Amino acid sequence: MTTLVVPTDDLYGLQNLPYGVYSVPGQEPGVGVRYGDHVVDLARLLNDETFATGSLNPFMAQGRARWIAVRAAIIEALTGDVAAEAVHELDAVVLHLPIEVADYVDFYASEHHASNMGRLFRPGSADPLSPNWRHLPIGYHGRSASIVVSGTDIMRPAGQRKDPADAAPVFGPSTRLDIEAELGFVVGTGNPMGQPIPVAEAEEHLFGVVLFNDWSARDIQAWEYVPLGPNLGKSFACTVSAWVVPMLALQAAKVSIPVQKPAVLPYLALDRVWGLDIEIVVEWNGQVVSRPPYASMYWSPAQMLAHLTVNGAPTRTGDLFASGTISGPDKNQRGAFIELTWNGAEPVDVNGRPRTFLEDGDEVVLRATAPGPGGTRLGFGEARGRIVPNPP
Amino acid sequence: MTTLVVPTDDLYGLQNLPYGVYSVPGQEPGVGVRYGDHVVDLARLLNDETFATGSLNPFMAQGRARWIAVRAAIIEALTGDVAAEAVHELDAVVLHLPIEVADYVDFYASEHHASNMGRLFRPGSADPLSPNWRHLPIGYHGRSASIVVSGTDIMRPAGQRKDPADAAPVFGPSTRLDIEAELGFVVGTGNPMGQPIPVAEAEEHLFGVVLFNDWSARDIQAWEYVPLGPNLGKSFACTVSAWVVPMLALQAAKVSIPVQKPAVLPYLALDRVWGLDIEIVVEWNGQVVSRPPYASMYWSPAQMLAHLTVNGAPTRTGDLFASGTISGPDKNQRGAFIELTWNGAEPVDVNGRPRTFLEDGDEVVLRATAPGPGGTRLGFGEARGRIVPNPP
Repeated sequence: MTTLVVPTDDLYGLQNLPYGVYSVPGQEPGVGVRYGDHVVDLARLLNDETFATGSLNPFMAQGRARWIAVRAAIIEALTGDVAAEAVHELDAVVLHLPIEVADYVDFYASEHHASNMGRLFRPGSADPLSPNWRHLPIGYHGRSASIVVSGTDIMRPAGQRKDPADAAPVFGPSTRLDIEAELGFVVGTGNPMGQPIPVAEAEEHLFGVVLFNDWSARDIQAWEYVPLGPNLGKSFACTVSAWVVPMLALQAAKVSIPVQKPAVLPYLALDRVWGLDIEIVVEWNGQVVSRPPYASMYWSPAQMLAHLTVNGAPTRTGDLFASGTISGPDKNQRGAFIELTWNGAEPVDVNGRPRTFLEDGDEVVLRATAPGPGGTRLGFGEARGRIVPNPP
Repeated sequence: MTTLVVPTDDLYGLQNLPYGVYSVPGQEPGVGVRYGDHVVDLARLLNDETFATGSLNPFMAQGRARWIAVRAAIIEALTGDVAAEAVHELDAVVLHLPIEVADYVDFYASEHHASNMGRLFRPGSADPLSPNWRHLPIGYHGRSASIVVSGTDIMRPAGQRKDPADAAPVFGPSTRLDIEAELGFVVGTGNPMGQPIPVAEAEEHLFGVVLFNDWSARDIQAWEYVPLGPNLGKSFACTVSAWVVPMLALQAAKVSIPVQKPAVLPYLALDRVWGLDIEIVVEWNGQVVSRPPYASMYWSPAQMLAHLTVNGAPTRTGDLFASGTISGPDKNQRGAFIELTWNGAEPVDVNGRPRTFLEDGDEVVLRATAPGPGGTRLGFGEARGRIVPNPP
C-alpha cells in the first residue's frame, strides 16, 4: 500500500479528479483518474469491473447518481492508503481517446467569434451576425471518426480551394490551416427519440468537459460551405484532451452567462446558473498567443443540449458537442488565428517571426483552468497537435 | 430439410439476396438474407457465427473478398436443400436496422434537385446552382442516432421557424414537413486517417445500397441553415430500408453518369462506369406521386466517397452516405414535395385531395427496382414511415 500526497494548490488535486483512459506498455487500456501526476486505475482502486475497459462509456451510461457515488468513493479511497499496483506515474503511461464518440455537433456559441467572422466575410453588413444567431445556438454535425486524442499528429488536409480571382478551383494541401479553441461537452446519458431534454434536465445528462481544437482549413471551407455548411474544411481532424473534467467538479466555476437579448424562446430559458468561468490558453510553438475566456460565451451548454434535442432527435452516451471557437472581446482573447491575425492582414509575433496560418511542424497546445472550491483551481490537461506535411 | 423455390421473375431471387437483421419473437436478432418472401438465417445456413449478431457490421468489416465468397456460398446453399430451422417467412419476423451507423453524410448530388432548390430560393440568379456545385459533391454530416428502420413512426418535429414577415421566430411543430427520396451507400471497410480512398478503389470499400428517406422540416431548415447548414430541420429522423442490396448484385445496373462539365479535378475522375440505373417510386398514402430516376444523378457514389476522404478524413465500417434528393428532369420525377408542389404553389392530387406538405397520419413509402442479370430485376424492400402528431 502507498499514500499519495498531492498539495492543495495542484491543478489535479481532490477538487478535480478528471477521468481518462490509459495503458502501460503491453497491457490492455483501463479507466484511470488523474491525481496530481499520478494516474490511479479505477478498476483496482474501487474493485469495479466497470472501469476495466478502453472507454468511459460504460461508466457514463450508468447515470448521474452513479457519477456522484463514484466520485465520493474515489475521494475517500485516495485519502486513505492505496494499493501500489493501482498507481502509475503520468509520464509512464499512454493516454487514449477517453470516450467512444457517438454523434458530434459543433456549435457557434461565441458572440465575439461570430461577429468577427461576420465582419471579415460580410463587410458592410448592418449586423455582422446572421438574423437567427441570437435566437438559437447555431450548430452543425461533424465527423466523429476524426476526433483524436491530444498528442496525435495532424496531417495537413488536401482539398479544393478557389480564390475569387481564379476561373476554376485547384486541388492541393491547404494553405490556410487554422485552429479553433473550444470546449467539448460529453453526454453521459442520452434521450430516446421523440423525448427532448429540457434545459432544466441538462445537468442530469452532462458528464464532463474536454478541451477541443477544431482544426480548420479556411481555404477549403470557404469554397465548399455554401449552401450546406462546412464539411472537408473541418472533417480531417479534431483534437480532444485526454482528461474529461467531471461537471461535478465545476460547481465553483459556475457564473452567469451574458445577458441574452432579445429574450430567448421558453424552451431555451435557463432555470439556473449555467455559464462556466474557464480560462483557456492557446500556445503556438510554446508561446502564448491568446487567452480566450469561456465565461464570455453567449450560449450555455444546457441551451445547446436542449436545442439539439428539441426536435425529438435522440442523443446517446458518448455524444460530444463543442462550443465553437471561444473568443473574448479583446484581440488577445481570440480563439482562431483567422480572427487573431484578421484574416492574415495582421500577423502575430511567434518566437520573433510574424505568423498568420499554420506551417508544417507547428505545434498548438490548448490548456485551461477553472476555479475549484476553497480558492483552488482545476486543470484540464492539454489538447496538443503538431502539423505534419501532406504528403507525409 | 426443405427446398426453396423462388421464380426467376421475383424481385428477391438469386440475383439479389439483400442482407438484413431480423428476429423472431423471443429470440435474439440475427443476420438474414431475403430470398423471395423467405428470410434465411445466415448463421445457420452457412454455419458461421459472424452472422449470429444484431448487425451486419462484423461481416462488412471482413472485406470484399469475404463478401464475394459469402455471396457465392449463399447461392450454392440456397440452390440445394436448406435446413428448415434456417428459414422464416417474411411476415413472421421483425426487421431491425441492418447496420450500426458510424458517421452519416448526406450529399446533394442531383443536378435537377439542386437546380430546383436554387430556382425556388434564389429566383433571378443567373445560375440556380452555387458556383462550387459542378466542381465537388456538396455534402454535410447528419445525425447517425436518428437513422431508423422502415416502419418506424416519425414524430412531427418541433422547432423554431420565422416567416420573413414576422418580427421574431415562433416555436412549434413543423408546418412544412417534407420527404427526400434518396439512396444510401454503406461503407463496408473504411480508411485510416490520412489515407484517402481513390475513386479507383471505391469498389473495394462499398458494401451495399439502402433506400433512404431524409425527412425534412422546411420551415425549421429555412430559419436555421445560414451560415452553417441544416441541423434540426433534418436531425429528427431518417428512414432506411431493412434490406441492404449488395453492390455485388448491381453489376447489371451499372450505367454511365451524365457528362460532367466542366471536367472534374483528377481526384474525382472515374476510371469505370459508376452510375446506377435504379428506379425509385414514391408513394404518398398508397398513391404513386413520383418516380425519381437514380440514373440521372450527376455525382456517383465513388466520387462521393473519394471526395469525403480526400482531406484525410477516416471512414469506418458502417459509415453511411446518402445521395441527396433524387430528382429527374420531369416534374413527376421530383423526389421532394417542396419541388413536386413548387414550394406549395402547385398542390398534387393524393387520393382526390390537393396536397402540399405532410399531415399527421400521412404515410410515405419509397420503393425501388434495378436491372439484374438476364433480364431479371432486383427489389430494394421499402422505406416506410408514418407521421405521428407532436405532442403524440
